[in-house]
Amino acid sequence: MSEPVRVGVVGMGTVGSGVVRVLDRSADHIQRQAGRPIIVEQVVVRDAGKQRDVAVPGNRISTDLAAVADDPAIAVAAMLVGGLEPARSMTIELLRKGKDVVTANKALLAEHGPELFAVAREAGRSIAFEAAIAGGIPIVAAIAECLAANRIKSIRGILNGTSNFILTRMEEEGSDYAEVLALAQAEGYAEADPTMDVDGTDATQKLALLAHLAFGSWVPWGMIPRVGLETIDQELLRFADELGYRIRVVADASRGADSLAMQVGPTLVRKGTPLAETRGAFNAVSVVGDAVGPLFFHGLGAGELPTASAVVADIIDTVVGRAAITFRTTGMLEADTPAASLTGGSSSRYLLRLHVTDRPGVLADLTNVLGSEGISIASVIQHQTAAGTAAVPLVIMTHSCEATAIARAVATLDQQPAVQAATSCLPVLDD
Amino acid sequence: MSEPVRVGVVGMGTVGSGVVRVLDRSADHIQRQAGRPIIVEQVVVRDAGKQRDVAVPGNRISTDLAAVADDPAIAVAAMLVGGLEPARSMTIELLRKGKDVVTANKALLAEHGPELFAVAREAGRSIAFEAAIAGGIPIVAAIAECLAANRIKSIRGILNGTSNFILTRMEEEGSDYAEVLALAQAEGYAEADPTMDVDGTDATQKLALLAHLAFGSWVPWGMIPRVGLETIDQELLRFADELGYRIRVVADASRGADSLAMQVGPTLVRKGTPLAETRGAFNAVSVVGDAVGPLFFHGLGAGELPTASAVVADIIDTVVGRAAITFRTTGMLEADTPAASLTGGSSSRYLLRLHVTDRPGVLADLTNVLGSEGISIASVIQHQTAAGTAAVPLVIMTHSCEATAIARAVATLDQQPAVQAATSCLPVLDD
Repeated sequence: MSEPVRVGVVGMGTVGSGVVRVLDRSADHIQRQAGRPIIVEQVVVRDAGKQRDVAVPGNRISTDLAAVADDPAIAVAAMLVGGLEPARSMTIELLRKGKDVVTANKALLAEHGPELFAVAREAGRSIAFEAAIAGGIPIVAAIAECLAANRIKSIRGILNGTSNFILTRMEEEGSDYAEVLALAQAEGYAEADPTMDVDGTDATQKLALLAHLAFGSWVPWGMIPRVGLETIDQELLRFADELGYRIRVVADASRGADSLAMQVGPTLVRKGTPLAETRGAFNAVSVVGDAVGPLFFHGLGAGELPTASAVVADIIDTVVGRAAITFRTTGMLEADTPAASLTGGSSSRYLLRLHVTDRPGVLADLTNVLGSEGISIASVIQHQTAAGTAAVPLVIMTHSCEATAIARAVATLDQQPAVQAATSCLPVLDD
Repeated sequence: MSEPVRVGVVGMGTVGSGVVRVLDRSADHIQRQAGRPIIVEQVVVRDAGKQRDVAVPGNRISTDLAAVADDPAIAVAAMLVGGLEPARSMTIELLRKGKDVVTANKALLAEHGPELFAVAREAGRSIAFEAAIAGGIPIVAAIAECLAANRIKSIRGILNGTSNFILTRMEEEGSDYAEVLALAQAEGYAEADPTMDVDGTDATQKLALLAHLAFGSWVPWGMIPRVGLETIDQELLRFADELGYRIRVVADASRGADSLAMQVGPTLVRKGTPLAETRGAFNAVSVVGDAVGPLFFHGLGAGELPTASAVVADIIDTVVGRAAITFRTTGMLEADTPAASLTGGSSSRYLLRLHVTDRPGVLADLTNVLGSEGISIASVIQHQTAAGTAAVPLVIMTHSCEATAIARAVATLDQQPAVQAATSCLPVLDD
């Protein structure tokens, strides 16, 4: 039998615990897949005294990264510490000390990817990151390997399980955003600080990485237009439902002639389409390639075991040598990576929800604003309200128009005296 | 720049033409993915004089396999001849002459896999076959690589685009099987001889290969229970619709304690579930792993370009060295591959459609037959028919029962004097 491969697990949060659990309980199966046993040699944690429900012998737990970095017997490090620092410095240290790295930290790669991938290349090591995007869905392998013959036209997906969980609950239970967020936190579906999930940062960082794999160019995630979930209320969900749609936070990237259109934010998706039927903590990704046509993937985007499934697959890939090849062929964020130019978004239909003063002539004034931007109206909903209501909701569904035109129109609408609150503007997907 | 890799394409039917087309039109893109140019050096055809819409210079077209097999400059052969012979002998010749082989021929692998994989191992070559199963959906890579950390619990899918196209058309247009088949043939969605598509052979061969990748053991495809499409008529589709289901040809394999349950055949799938919404020539596969949970894939299962997408991805994988690693780690059909024992099918709900004499006491007699097998009834549909009708349709939905029990019950039912025609029995999937 071949010598075992020794792995260091750095970070024992949810994902780290899952990785130790999977490597332990499926040891025989994984040994067959990897051709050699894979053994957790050392675990690095912040607090060695913390009670854990995963069994690691005491002498294999350390609070010092050197226990992994300086052990020449350890070949692969699973870097499962979240956030930017010390995760960045730790990753650099591990690479420089000759460890191949597997990580689930998308924020780290989106923010410091150019530096980290360069360090890995200098050190002759690989970084594998299937687990960083869409959890258990093998979307990185699909784009980087399986669709290599294709020029990718577009990627569209639900990439953040927390915000999808919240939206689905709001939809099913009629509760408000704040209420459902508190519940999600209590049930462990949302972090104590959910900011990066609900403001779209997490999905945007994942989209930046996927777009680099798919299109070759690089858009720093902060440049990608992004709208958060906190703008969604029950009234919007009800109007969407009435029109035959659900609301999902959709991350969207498509290739134009010389540029990319990218955006992340709440979007109307037609009921019955795969994105609309993606519920709870599930993620979904749809990719269109010029040869393969439309491909759709659906699976658990987060959680201990689904994410561990991806981390351990990357560890096996690293052990057998596939990860090194893929790291080389994808040329992640090499120095000559072209910067993509972003267009102002592709054209789309939009749903506008306005709160307006209920007096004669208002609808004409508002639709004139749209008309002057060349935006034509597909349908309008205004329900009868009790006499004397100060502001009434008015919903307008447009025909397809440019993102820049609708943005100008919304800015103008919000300056109208009859408009009582900021207008909500959501793109609409019909397929 | 690195030396180009020279490829031989053997067989210029739909898939072969697609491969030449993709390698040509995306040459720059593919060169970046592979790190070297990939060039079609030689094409082997049956009829050199045939008019083709893909441009290959005359001196690169041959009717002799030796033009590829004996050319030491050719490293990779895309073996795209269908059927068993001469495909089998040609594949052996190519492997023995040192070519790595990429193929889309699932019948060849399902029938002669043990021999062909052994020849490849002896010759130190690889066989890659992503294109053989579910066309453009990367399900082979998903199971063999991306889900390597998982013990797979089940695989369930729509693996034959032709029969799904026919079923969807029957459903949408209310036409009969024979009529839609003729139309599908005229439109190029079904072969002149569609036997292997419509009798379930093709899906069963794909399921045998997937099950080997997922479960490690091998079930010769001929041992897998298989029901064809020709048993489906409009009356069954209408009853299914009335009960909230669609009919799809589902290939199903799941792991029991010491055995596998496998079957292929028309199945009731609840409307709104992903398999029910898989329409036309699309394929879909759902895989459940112990760590990743449920994963779902949907894409085009056949056709020139989707299949070529998978073939060319395999060519790239072969060129960069990933295919050789995966061929080794999967140990396809090695001599010590365990034979799986098949159970008589897992338990399920069933829909029975009987044609019975319309006289008092019949329903009691028939339900007694089910009762004596311990099968309980969830619902019964019998619509009023004109007086004097010789045989009336009667539909019974059962609660969950064993496949062996329902098979015995159907055999007994068909011996009852009141039963006028062979009873249709379809498993029911509710999730």
